[in-house]
Amino acid sequence: MFAARLIEALGADAVKTAPEDLAVYAFDAYSQALLPSVVVLPSSTRDVAAAVKIANDCGEPIVARGAGTGLCGGAVPAKGGMVLSFARMNRILELDTRNRRARVQPGLVNLDLSRASQPSGLFYAPDPSSQKVCTIGGNCATNAGGPHCLSYGTTVNHVLGLELVDDAGEVFHTSIDDAGYDLTGALVGSEGTLAIICAADVRLMKLPEEVRVWVAAFRDVECASQTVSAIIAAGVVPTALEIMDEIIVKVVEASYQAGYPLDAGAVLLVEYAGFANDMNEYEAAIEKIASENGAISWRAARSQAERDALWAGRKGAAGATGRLAPNYYIQDVCVPRSKLPAALAAVGASARAHELTVGNVFHAGDGNLHPLLMYDKRDCKQVGAVIDAGNEILQACVDLGGTISGEHGIGYEKRDTLSLVFSTEDLAAMARVREVFDPKRVLNPEKIFPAGVSCGEVR
Amino acid sequence: MFAARLIEALGADAVKTAPEDLAVYAFDAYSQALLPSVVVLPSSTRDVAAAVKIANDCGEPIVARGAGTGLCGGAVPAKGGMVLSFARMNRILELDTRNRRARVQPGLVNLDLSRASQPSGLFYAPDPSSQKVCTIGGNCATNAGGPHCLSYGTTVNHVLGLELVDDAGEVFHTSIDDAGYDLTGALVGSEGTLAIICAADVRLMKLPEEVRVWVAAFRDVECASQTVSAIIAAGVVPTALEIMDEIIVKVVEASYQAGYPLDAGAVLLVEYAGFANDMNEYEAAIEKIASENGAISWRAARSQAERDALWAGRKGAAGATGRLAPNYYIQDVCVPRSKLPAALAAVGASARAHELTVGNVFHAGDGNLHPLLMYDKRDCKQVGAVIDAGNEILQACVDLGGTISGEHGIGYEKRDTLSLVFSTEDLAAMARVREVFDPKRVLNPEKIFPAGVSCGEVR
Repeated sequence: MFAARLIEALGADAVKTAPEDLAVYAFDAYSQALLPSVVVLPSSTRDVAAAVKIANDCGEPIVARGAGTGLCGGAVPAKGGMVLSFARMNRILELDTRNRRARVQPGLVNLDLSRASQPSGLFYAPDPSSQKVCTIGGNCATNAGGPHCLSYGTTVNHVLGLELVDDAGEVFHTSIDDAGYDLTGALVGSEGTLAIICAADVRLMKLPEEVRVWVAAFRDVECASQTVSAIIAAGVVPTALEIMDEIIVKVVEASYQAGYPLDAGAVLLVEYAGFANDMNEYEAAIEKIASENGAISWRAARSQAERDALWAGRKGAAGATGRLAPNYYIQDVCVPRSKLPAALAAVGASARAHELTVGNVFHAGDGNLHPLLMYDKRDCKQVGAVIDAGNEILQACVDLGGTISGEHGIGYEKRDTLSLVFSTEDLAAMARVREVFDPKRVLNPEKIFPAGVSCGEVR
Repeated sequence: MFAARLIEALGADAVKTAPEDLAVYAFDAYSQALLPSVVVLPSSTRDVAAAVKIANDCGEPIVARGAGTGLCGGAVPAKGGMVLSFARMNRILELDTRNRRARVQPGLVNLDLSRASQPSGLFYAPDPSSQKVCTIGGNCATNAGGPHCLSYGTTVNHVLGLELVDDAGEVFHTSIDDAGYDLTGALVGSEGTLAIICAADVRLMKLPEEVRVWVAAFRDVECASQTVSAIIAAGVVPTALEIMDEIIVKVVEASYQAGYPLDAGAVLLVEYAGFANDMNEYEAAIEKIASENGAISWRAARSQAERDALWAGRKGAAGATGRLAPNYYIQDVCVPRSKLPAALAAVGASARAHELTVGNVFHAGDGNLHPLLMYDKRDCKQVGAVIDAGNEILQACVDLGGTISGEHGIGYEKRDTLSLVFSTEDLAAMARVREVFDPKRVLNPEKIFPAGVSCGEVR
């Protein structure tokens, strides 16, 4: 009945119910898979509104989905129902280079926007490591970050307005340019629990006059982390400050021959974008800081090709760990920069206690750790150990004054840990917002909030 | 009974009911005054929570108030009730220079934060022209701008978290550093209609290495506006781009002897902050652009004293118009930068049609106009003409693709015009958010939304 009504409204081509089709939409990059009852592929905002109205009538949950690269199960249909895949809504609707903005459909692949803007000297700044496949809609839903958010901010800093469909299938708009409540900020990062994003107005930035990338090698991650703190404290913020430990550098070099030194306990990747005038002075300043903090070697990438290779290696690091184990679990935690050494020590201690191999690759400038715990999911003991170690790392980072997610979101995985960083009153304030947008809890149910947090209970 | 309970909870010293005390809190910088029934001066978040609980019990409206510099009646107690003045909560609670942030009470004067940060090489960026008196709490409530928001963004870009009291007197917190819905963005700019701000964590920025200020004279505001568009189009964004027309320059010079040229139809103030290395190259580039767009003269301020004098004149421009007429009405509208000449033409036409003198002083880089209409409020005909001209200007700017407020907010004055820029559905989405935070409409009632927009009607 539900599927039949969807087919009547959107056409058979837009509605998938075959088991083999549903299986494809049962998971994202999180480990747990749950089947939807139907998958809808809308071609327009009108299609989305029509599908949501029907789901609402039938009391079916609604889960919006970009490219499914999320790591926390945000796009997993936890209570079945309808998955809305935006694969067919992947166009740039307007590229307004004069005012440096674009209107895009949610299924547009992140990197495609920068590629389209490049001839006009512009780019779209947020760059998750998955940017070759992940979508702007998914980026908005999770407020995605990336290596360059150190300098440019996360997705929310680049969204100027949204077109949305609410839980009842009505279209509405937000814009940061107008007066009234700025709901854009609340909707970006709400992981599909408040409304369905059907279009986004985003900011484009001017390509920098010059970009340089340097690689420094250190004895250990502590020295590399201290260097990061010292660079930030000295003033000018680089566009990226990324650290990889020895384990990660070795698998990256084996996979990508990216050009990282193999004789170091940790390497630091520094990128600076700005005026050509400032580059030599800037390089001298950070090389001095790196040297004072124990750098073994310092090297500048000499060409665009070398820079691209270093970045390809960095962004492919998680995938490269396939050389070490069949599976990895990536944790996403933040601590104040000054606590990076303590957090890394806690990560190492936890991995050792559970006899797990751990690699560290992280956005050091943001204090955003991404420990990769290697395991084999066919080994139940290892699975249990990974879950325990992941939780220990999370608690340790919270104890150090950090938080439970830097950029991957909460989704299905971390909803019960939200109470580690928010009080009952804080959660109640958020739950009340959800209640007003989605009183029936049909939009991405079982996500973000701990089980038991609902409007009725808190107010 | 209401006042007696407040006195019992907070002490007689914190509760004002004498007519001469109430009269002081009946108005802000908007023309209409309405009396509160009681004024409370809390000393802590606990005081605020206690007062709000009592007001809630007694069904009394609650209006939070900073320094009362708002221009739209946002702090006017439109339905009487309790005014919460934050004059006694004016301290910096924590100045964390290492992490470049501060926790402040809402009654802290804006400029006092930059003064306290300066010895550490830091400053608080949002700088409304009223920054010598206006408060951080009021700035947060209105998402205040200022000349430098061209480069640094408005208040919302500098707020990291809030401590709030809700309509029922419960304390809650928001933080942009944590996961979950980012309610900070929705609360900043909500003009006291969602919750009461009791503390704010704000970002501090590094003082630039060098600041330069230049003044260019033009035949008319059209040439000056075209120069602004050309500078932005050329790439690097200055920290401020301000235009004053001939009428304003003359009163500013009479009052401040600031150093602006008196032989011009319009002057453009350009400020650039950055690396000393780039300054000469940058100056040459913009001087060339100004010259190409018809600049009659070009002058660099030679010293800090000269720069300060130019800024004192610019920030004191509205007050200086007291030389021309007993009263002024300042409109606050935005248009796309490329539409500035058309908007200024509409302003001039409207003033002429109503036989009013108008002066223009505005944040040209943001397309944010501030026409000052001179009048004498003892002359009813002039009052009517000013109201009509103000509405015509607002409509003309909306027709040019602009919006109804750049930075002053909506408050009491502009609530009925919100429907010029938002659809019924957009307003309904906002009203639903208000409904959940403030179901009884006790927080700053009669503000922001057009009469008739309420949750019950729209959903």
